[in-house]
Amino acid sequence: MADKVNLAEKLATFDDRWKPRIVADYNDNKVVLVKVEGEFVWHKHDDTDDFFLVVSGRLAIELRGQDDVELGPGELFVVPRGVEHRPVAREETHVLLIEPHGTSNTGDAGGDLTAEPQRI
Amino acid sequence: MADKVNLAEKLATFDDRWKPRIVADYNDNKVVLVKVEGEFVWHKHDDTDDFFLVVSGRLAIELRGQDDVELGPGELFVVPRGVEHRPVAREETHVLLIEPHGTSNTGDAGGDLTAEPQRI
Repeated sequence: MADKVNLAEKLATFDDRWKPRIVADYNDNKVVLVKVEGEFVWHKHDDTDDFFLVVSGRLAIELRGQDDVELGPGELFVVPRGVEHRPVAREETHVLLIEPHGTSNTGDAGGDLTAEPQRI
Repeated sequence: MADKVNLAEKLATFDDRWKPRIVADYNDNKVVLVKVEGEFVWHKHDDTDDFFLVVSGRLAIELRGQDDVELGPGELFVVPRGVEHRPVAREETHVLLIEPHGTSNTGDAGGDLTAEPQRI
């Protein structure tokens, strides 16, 4: 059986931005930690919602045609499937994400920020 | 589209123990907050894993035939499907849970602690 996951301890093991790490599995989903800073790419996931929980820092989730969602520590938001969005962090921000295994971090957009998550 | 969820604000709206509240949806799953204190019932979920993240307090997850898992704030654990477990909190503890919609909090055990989650 997998061990428990201490978020702070896991976050202390890496420092690169926009490179998700898998820390647990929940049914067919990966539970991911990622450090973000700056602007990500606009993208969407047609087949899945996207679960965001901010652990530290501040994350704006820009949503095409709608008001941004601004998340601080202890705040979560689920981007519905098919909704184009862009995460933006004006400071170093740590996020817990849940997505189905096989979901690309850049969704339909692809590009240089696409990263295969490593398991830690 | 659903609003963002501030965990502390949602937790401030109720005080009863072992009564889960739905605060968000992620695909076919409910994202739940619950305040716990004392001993729950031994139970299992044959069809799903059970995601626990401690927001505050301390939670022991007793596992049949295995060492307990002790969670503090910022620690998560996924109980695999089919594994009999019993959450125990020696103090008031606040937990974020993720389970598929329709999953009973008492799993196969049923009984007085079974609670239909309210949406807040």
